[in-house]
Amino acid sequence: MSKILVLGGDGFCGWPTALHLSYLGHDVVIVDNLSRRRIDAEMGAQSLTPISTIDVRLNAWREVSGNVIRFQYVDIAKDYARLAALVDTERPDAIVHFAEQRSAPYSMRGQVEKRYTMDNNVCGTHNLLVALVEADLDCHVVHLGTMGVYGYYGAGFEIPEGYLKVKVPDDNGALIDREILFPTQPGSVYHLTKSVDQLLFQYYAHNDGVRVTDLHQGVVWGTQTQETRLHPALVNRFDYEGEYGTVLNRFLVQAAIGYPLTVHGTGGQTRAFIHVEDTVRCVELAIANPPQRGDRVKILNQAAETLRVRDLAELVSRFTGAVVNFVPNPREEAAENDLRVSNATFRGLGLDPILLTDALLTETLEISDRYVDRVDRSQIRARSAWNKSRRAALEEPDRSSPAHEARPNDEGEGI
Amino acid sequence: MSKILVLGGDGFCGWPTALHLSYLGHDVVIVDNLSRRRIDAEMGAQSLTPISTIDVRLNAWREVSGNVIRFQYVDIAKDYARLAALVDTERPDAIVHFAEQRSAPYSMRGQVEKRYTMDNNVCGTHNLLVALVEADLDCHVVHLGTMGVYGYYGAGFEIPEGYLKVKVPDDNGALIDREILFPTQPGSVYHLTKSVDQLLFQYYAHNDGVRVTDLHQGVVWGTQTQETRLHPALVNRFDYEGEYGTVLNRFLVQAAIGYPLTVHGTGGQTRAFIHVEDTVRCVELAIANPPQRGDRVKILNQAAETLRVRDLAELVSRFTGAVVNFVPNPREEAAENDLRVSNATFRGLGLDPILLTDALLTETLEISDRYVDRVDRSQIRARSAWNKSRRAALEEPDRSSPAHEARPNDEGEGI
Ligand SMILES: NC(=O)c1ccc[n+]([C@@H]2O[C@H](COP(=O)([O-])OP(=O)(O)OC[C@H]3O[C@@H](n4cnc5c(N)ncnc54)[C@H](O)[C@@H]3O)[C@@H](O)[C@H]2O)c1
Ligand SMILES: NC(=O)c1ccc[n+]([C@@H]2O[C@H](COP(=O)([O-])OP(=O)(O)OC[C@H]3O[C@@H](n4cnc5c(N)ncnc54)[C@H](O)[C@@H]3O)[C@@H](O)[C@H]2O)c1
Repeated sequence: MSKILVLGGDGFCGWPTALHLSYLGHDVVIVDNLSRRRIDAEMGAQSLTPISTIDVRLNAWREVSGNVIRFQYVDIAKDYARLAALVDTERPDAIVHFAEQRSAPYSMRGQVEKRYTMDNNVCGTHNLLVALVEADLDCHVVHLGTMGVYGYYGAGFEIPEGYLKVKVPDDNGALIDREILFPTQPGSVYHLTKSVDQLLFQYYAHNDGVRVTDLHQGVVWGTQTQETRLHPALVNRFDYEGEYGTVLNRFLVQAAIGYPLTVHGTGGQTRAFIHVEDTVRCVELAIANPPQRGDRVKILNQAAETLRVRDLAELVSRFTGAVVNFVPNPREEAAENDLRVSNATFRGLGLDPILLTDALLTETLEISDRYVDRVDRSQIRARSAWNKSRRAALEEPDRSSPAHEARPNDEGEGI
Repeated sequence: MSKILVLGGDGFCGWPTALHLSYLGHDVVIVDNLSRRRIDAEMGAQSLTPISTIDVRLNAWREVSGNVIRFQYVDIAKDYARLAALVDTERPDAIVHFAEQRSAPYSMRGQVEKRYTMDNNVCGTHNLLVALVEADLDCHVVHLGTMGVYGYYGAGFEIPEGYLKVKVPDDNGALIDREILFPTQPGSVYHLTKSVDQLLFQYYAHNDGVRVTDLHQGVVWGTQTQETRLHPALVNRFDYEGEYGTVLNRFLVQAAIGYPLTVHGTGGQTRAFIHVEDTVRCVELAIANPPQRGDRVKILNQAAETLRVRDLAELVSRFTGAVVNFVPNPREEAAENDLRVSNATFRGLGLDPILLTDALLTETLEISDRYVDRVDRSQIRARSAWNKSRRAALEEPDRSSPAHEARPNDEGEGI
């Protein structure tokens, strides 16, 4: 089979992907600087699920599968020399690139986090591309981008896969057809870095023939996959605190501890969702269907369904009986937006995605109820406001309590 | 008058701009890390004109004008703390941002230079924006971008000022009007960083109300301005070597030493040009006409005329009698392109630009002939190829000599 580097392979999406690719028989090397664990420590937070160290994880995997996944500790943004040496010696067929700071609220926390997110994500992605060119390696890069680069302002039409067909008037007013990278409207510094990544990929595909697939992914939910269930030490992480907890995880934890579900503003923000099991499957499909050398960047939308946040809250409320509360919004964003996204390519490749209504109950029983004793209530509150005027929303008196008053939590899309 | 920080104020465009703004009565602070001088030292190159150290320059300016320009040594990409403290204590009305690595060939030289250009330019610009938000300062940022972000592939229509009006089909096929950031097609890592800067500005203008004017500038030519002529120690830099020498400067030096003018490929690449005296004047006009808080980024095209490289060579040949030679092209670019650019805004503000036919003779007499003894012939050869296949062009035998054989010099747009 192929040799595959999984950058960020210790993270929420990267870990189950690495296991699945190893399960399929690929020779997998995880590259990670464990920064996500460091950030947890810095925030005094931890995954709701009791995750093991990377060594214990890898030993457990060898035990249950007989397969070896290797691990390389590399900071891809700061340690170019190691990254370049690794690429040059391993000469992988594909590199799956998850290694970025991925929380929008964390990226808005303050000057340190804004700059860290920009420097880490942009320099990391650029280093990778430069290393491939230097090694003169024809390797397929599969990158995880976000739905958020399209902007959450309501396009007025179904969002295509990365490229937009437009008509431009020429000097005589006649309309010329052009197909352009979808003009991005990122909604946070984190999303901004993904818009920047797109330009980097476009450039290196054009100038050096680097083959890139960019997966514009929705909010990933769910915790376990077929492979992570094989051994307790393989359990995947579940983030629920103010920065990394995505909206659904936060609702599930609020429900489990008897808090109201806190919805920002009107909850009219529409987001796309995908189950982690499908993330893993989509990466498998992307690897199996690479672009050709000289092709433009292949951009695929990786999402199963779209929902308004208030509808998601209602869905969780139906499964758990939790109350829904509306609170001020600390984000600079449109109160309501329309989001329709084409996922034609993955559908065409056979993806039949898991929907929220299919697996939400499993998630509740398997994770949020099971680990409810591990919930740290002090971690639920959101700490990041998007700008000066939105900060007011966060500084309102704390109205949250088990007595069902709302606290201005970040609705916690977290990506 | 106003307080103005000039980032990169020791450079080719920044120095005459700082002098002019000081001449107009503004309180000017130059911020620079002198990296351009360091790169000269690293390449064993130097300006054709004998430039003075920053201290000598500033003393000479005080002597001739009676005005004080202050200098702060700060690396804006690496020393955020100093930059933030400076912004917060000085609280300038405007910041002119020239502080980037600005040579396309240098940015393509190898992995070190590619990564340096990306990290320096993107992190520097981002640091500046973050510092403004942190200081809660409503200050106008005037940034120098490049014409090159529009791409040199031939748009098929006159290039508007930063934004493109397009029609997008909605779900029913009806055409909706949208105005988008011009989709960029950068032609080098350097140009890529300017495309990235655009996204950064768009984001911070939208999220934090930062007021930004982005000047998409053509190739700047000419050396002296009204102010730099006032004292020999104020002389501006003139770059002619393989990396930083722009096409016209390289032609002028080749002519002065009796080399043929080396034109890449067919010389069919069209570029936009502007005299440095007009650069300075445009920045003055941009400062006097800021966007309002909440406005989108104001993008202006800063160019006087467009010419094909072979026509430029012929023009120089007419003034100097030099022979024109065609050599292989080390750049990954279209052989011929059409480039028509709107500069309606600056024209409307009263700019009546200096054209090549007006001032080329002065430039020859005042600079390239005058300093011909300072030419270092070993510096003329270009060292950067855009990619593997273009490297072949550079590795051809050296056919250049005073006997009028061509050497595959970079045509040296250099920006
Ligand atoms: N989780 C989601 O809902 C979601 C949605 C859309 C897109 N994505 C994207 O998918 C990718 C993975 O997301 P995730 O949820 O698994 O995030 P995560 O934070 O759990 O995992 C990211 C991993 O990358 C590592 N990493 C970060 N910077 C690194 C560096 N400089 N060098 C080496 N390793 C580094 C971290 O230590 C971590 O293990 C991200 O790029 C994210 O933007 C995630
Ligand atoms: N020269 C041209 O033809 C031209 C054309 C279009 C656009 N521009 C743009 O105009 C700007 C100025 O160009 P120039 O020709 O004067 O270049 P230059 O290299 O002569 O000047 C840039 C200055 O910025 C400084 N600098 C670079 N990085 C810095 C950092 N991290 N911190 C502090 N100072 C730093 C350098 O030391 C130098 O003095 C650039 O952004 C360039 O891209 C230039």
